Amino acid sequence: MKEKMKMNTEILSKIKCPSDVKKLNYDSLVKLCGEIRGKLIETVSANGGHLAPNLGVVELTVAMHKVFNSPKDQFVFDVGHQCYTHKLLTGRYEKFSSLRTKGGISGFCRPTESEHDIFYSGHSGTSVSAGLGLAEAKKINNDPHYVISVIGDGSFTGGMVYEALNNGGRSDAKQIIILNDNKMSISENVGAFAKYLAVIRSRPGYYTFKANTEKILSKIPLGEVIAKEIYNIKTDIKNKIYKQSTFFEDLGYRYMGPIDGHNIENLCDALESAKSVRGPVLLHVITVKGKGYGHAEKAPSQFHGISKFDVETGEPLSSSESFSSKVGDYLCQHANSDKSICAITAAMGLGTGLEKFSKAFPERFFDVGIAEEHAVTFSSGLAKNGMKPVYAVYSTFLQRCYDQIIHDISLQKLKVVFAIDRAGFVGEDGETHHGIYDVAFLNTVPDIKVYSPCCYKSLYADLSSALYADEYSAVVRYPRGCAAENINKLKFNEIGYSYYGEENAEKVIVTYGRISSNAISAADALTETALVVLNQIKPIPSNAFEIISKKKEVYFFEEGIKSGGVGEKLGSMLLENGFSGKYKITAVNDEFARQASISDLLKEYSLDTESIIKTVSGETN
Amino acid sequence: MKEKMKMNTEILSKIKCPSDVKKLNYDSLVKLCGEIRGKLIETVSANGGHLAPNLGVVELTVAMHKVFNSPKDQFVFDVGHQCYTHKLLTGRYEKFSSLRTKGGISGFCRPTESEHDIFYSGHSGTSVSAGLGLAEAKKINNDPHYVISVIGDGSFTGGMVYEALNNGGRSDAKQIIILNDNKMSISENVGAFAKYLAVIRSRPGYYTFKANTEKILSKIPLGEVIAKEIYNIKTDIKNKIYKQSTFFEDLGYRYMGPIDGHNIENLCDALESAKSVRGPVLLHVITVKGKGYGHAEKAPSQFHGISKFDVETGEPLSSSESFSSKVGDYLCQHANSDKSICAITAAMGLGTGLEKFSKAFPERFFDVGIAEEHAVTFSSGLAKNGMKPVYAVYSTFLQRCYDQIIHDISLQKLKVVFAIDRAGFVGEDGETHHGIYDVAFLNTVPDIKVYSPCCYKSLYADLSSALYADEYSAVVRYPRGCAAENINKLKFNEIGYSYYGEENAEKVIVTYGRISSNAISAADALTETALVVLNQIKPIPSNAFEIISKKKEVYFFEEGIKSGGVGEKLGSMLLENGFSGKYKITAVNDEFARQASISDLLKEYSLDTESIIKTVSGETN
Repeated sequence: MKEKMKMNTEILSKIKCPSDVKKLNYDSLVKLCGEIRGKLIETVSANGGHLAPNLGVVELTVAMHKVFNSPKDQFVFDVGHQCYTHKLLTGRYEKFSSLRTKGGISGFCRPTESEHDIFYSGHSGTSVSAGLGLAEAKKINNDPHYVISVIGDGSFTGGMVYEALNNGGRSDAKQIIILNDNKMSISENVGAFAKYLAVIRSRPGYYTFKANTEKILSKIPLGEVIAKEIYNIKTDIKNKIYKQSTFFEDLGYRYMGPIDGHNIENLCDALESAKSVRGPVLLHVITVKGKGYGHAEKAPSQFHGISKFDVETGEPLSSSESFSSKVGDYLCQHANSDKSICAITAAMGLGTGLEKFSKAFPERFFDVGIAEEHAVTFSSGLAKNGMKPVYAVYSTFLQRCYDQIIHDISLQKLKVVFAIDRAGFVGEDGETHHGIYDVAFLNTVPDIKVYSPCCYKSLYADLSSALYADEYSAVVRYPRGCAAENINKLKFNEIGYSYYGEENAEKVIVTYGRISSNAISAADALTETALVVLNQIKPIPSNAFEIISKKKEVYFFEEGIKSGGVGEKLGSMLLENGFSGKYKITAVNDEFARQASISDLLKEYSLDTESIIKTVSGETN
Repeated sequence: MKEKMKMNTEILSKIKCPSDVKKLNYDSLVKLCGEIRGKLIETVSANGGHLAPNLGVVELTVAMHKVFNSPKDQFVFDVGHQCYTHKLLTGRYEKFSSLRTKGGISGFCRPTESEHDIFYSGHSGTSVSAGLGLAEAKKINNDPHYVISVIGDGSFTGGMVYEALNNGGRSDAKQIIILNDNKMSISENVGAFAKYLAVIRSRPGYYTFKANTEKILSKIPLGEVIAKEIYNIKTDIKNKIYKQSTFFEDLGYRYMGPIDGHNIENLCDALESAKSVRGPVLLHVITVKGKGYGHAEKAPSQFHGISKFDVETGEPLSSSESFSSKVGDYLCQHANSDKSICAITAAMGLGTGLEKFSKAFPERFFDVGIAEEHAVTFSSGLAKNGMKPVYAVYSTFLQRCYDQIIHDISLQKLKVVFAIDRAGFVGEDGETHHGIYDVAFLNTVPDIKVYSPCCYKSLYADLSSALYADEYSAVVRYPRGCAAENINKLKFNEIGYSYYGEENAEKVIVTYGRISSNAISAADALTETALVVLNQIKPIPSNAFEIISKKKEVYFFEEGIKSGGVGEKLGSMLLENGFSGKYKITAVNDEFARQASISDLLKEYSLDTESIIKTVSGETN
């Protein structure tokens, strides 16, 4: 199959920039879409990535480049994980096989990569806000070009979109929003808005737009009317046919749709119409997530973001137990006897290992959509009335809830458990997805306890402490993937740390989380060097602190941002307590970590075994 | 007038708990409302506080306590600054004169104060999320009582509400949302949603609800139908009359309204109807912000949150120049010649000193509503297309934008200037409003520069650096109120700090921001003690660091949270660089600062002159 794919890039391989797309007729564009799909499947099966979302927007993206002039017309892709076709059409075909690899093409929009990538993206719901800002600036500068935000229906479960719509809907800046409606977030889309879209989709007229308009338009006598006028009249009529949504109209947008998102001619026609409408317009496009690849159409959630897989069978090339699946298991096990346990996710039930829970305890499982802020405050409400909510969320997305964690968790003194997945580097998703900030920003929040287990045994113990022992809310954070084998060398005490090595060693390595495994290997290789692995990192256990403060040299390693991290806190504590030995922190220092495999990243930031050895033995500085 | 007020608490003074409200007939309730208004005006004129919002919901709150049974039925007030009547009716009348004072009644909901305060609040848009969590828990626990969220139309400009509505609208948990529509945020409400509400309000039927229903209901022949059935039929009919909003219906809510929010009988009737509807319901109530106090009705923005004022004239008892007004002046002055300067506010144009700017440059002024996240990403969009956006925001509200600051500001490497007002303690608004986290969480964000000026000269210099010299985004943060007089003793160099005192002093006080004034007084009183005041706090200027690191004793004072603050960063840096002297940080340590005057708070946290002297001279530890 791969061979076949490679053969079919006759048109695609010749597209060096968007103007090459414009030269193609509809038949060629349809062929181009087929070639793009082949390239997408070939690349993602080899590199991993977001497949289903990209397969869904092939025609839409091609139509956009046919109708608009990027980068003068500016495309803002929400989240950005659906921008692969855009990348293929804007000069990045040759490099596309480097997708998501170290030094290669990003799986999201990245302005430093191309002038056609207008805005970094990675978290959902920002495209309408950014687009509106771009459009208002164009208005002030009398720039007549268009700004087009492409956003999925899943993102409409997030609040930021409404903040932007509320502003855009009363603005006379020209913004075009394309609602890419595939009925899905990562999993099936949830909530009242999803229901509402279903109502629109089911109305007569869906998919029959073209037939209708053509019929009506053909009856307009053209006669002597000048071209411009004809165009306006046609547009008016088209817009009347489109107009079916009071919801968006109430928010001030001209609504057009729904349109078949896999019919290029229809799409081009609709985009032209959208251009001609005065003021803000929302174009509702229906797409099939995973379109054109049977396995992905059948299981779009599995193929949303995926690791390397076999193209023929659709099966992933590797799979194993993980911290995520262990958390899911733990919760299922305890929710049987403890009827107060609830699980909350912001559209990440699959990634966070909650699928089993959702099936076993549907009445206590809440997928709130891509609504991280709401998830926190909602959990707090559950806790207030006696439930034990466990909010499972990726570290990177938790950044969205900082204020809610302070006000609606910490201040309320209620018990909500945060199961923070993907803590630390995540690898190929790159700069917008690494979980390297959570420790630093949680450090600033009063009363919340933070655990960072490095093995499954600690993970279970921490979940148990968080649910049944701790007075207030607690966070249990763990990395993507599975625990390392050598980690069983550590014996954790109840106080929250493990001491490894000779009691009287003068040097000590201090660390926590995934890289504890590398630290063990380093300690084994070094002489006179002990290791303290923290399981509880906030507050730092006082007994561990005492031990550390008696050493002569302390080397702290942290898979997270240095500023505000545990390393700085420990350093400052040591100094305040009169420690006068050597202290050195190795962490991510005030920069965005790029995409690469996790092991490459650990190496890059001197957190691998070899670097730890070098640092402690003074070979680097 | 004050005397008159005091005389009229005949009914109010006898209300010890909500059941006392239930005993009163409508006539007495109307009288009660008059007495409450008197008490509100009396107290707020003396203590400062939120006047206009509270005057608007007197009848609504009285009706809620007449119809529901708090605290079994749970009231969640959004923001909470409209809960004064609720406090007066739930056993806090006697203590009410302590409103917003040290140790007194909070100006917001505070669960530790009363079982009738269900949820801490302070930031807008959380009440529907919290209410939904409470309601889902009640459903799971088969608790038949009601959850009622009271939320203003201003909060509907914030996205979190839609996240919650999207979930509530498809839930069968019973939640009642009361939309308190006074056409205002703090200032006049903005955006498409506000327009939409105006459309509903203007429909025939507004304010005529009661007449209509009574007319129709009187025509139903009652005959032999049993009472329960009559009730259901009547309710159905009422609901049909109410139903006028497709917007809320599309989101899955039964819409009822609009109702005159100052007619207690109508309100009680509507609340009873809302109880009887199955599933989630939204009751739209129209109120007048400032109702019953002429000055406040005329200028509701001025009387939203207000300092002590003269009841007769409505004039504030004190007023002066402030950091906020200076920022406004600076921007106006420069926006004349620099056509790229834009000002953005999230519904705080008045508080942040942007009123003049909004009038002088309306096309470059953007009040985006209570939408802090959108404000950031929108600003980034403006910057991308060549504008110089200045986002003026209170420190406490900036907590909402942490993720957007990382992704949409820092990562984009665009220049957006943050003018952060109310940095540090804010005084009487208490635990939800102190600006003590911004430094710590901004410390974790790559590339963003942070200035914390302590005088107007530095403020101007910092704004100028941020707008014209710095490569990427920068933050200028400043306290509520005005600069201290003795601050002119400091001479700031271009590197971003000021050294004050003897060159060879062995001890040094290090600090920044407002408390620099206290540090000057302390340094003057102490011997052998120099002072380093940082103007640029991120990154810490290297020259300042060098000077500090040569001292024998370093005393750091910080009006902010200790964890992750500048003090810890400096401590860790010192240790990593071989400093082995004494180091001591004085800051807010892992707790929520309560309400009190700013000077009381500085004393409480040992940041006043006397405490600084004691700390440095070793009298405290």
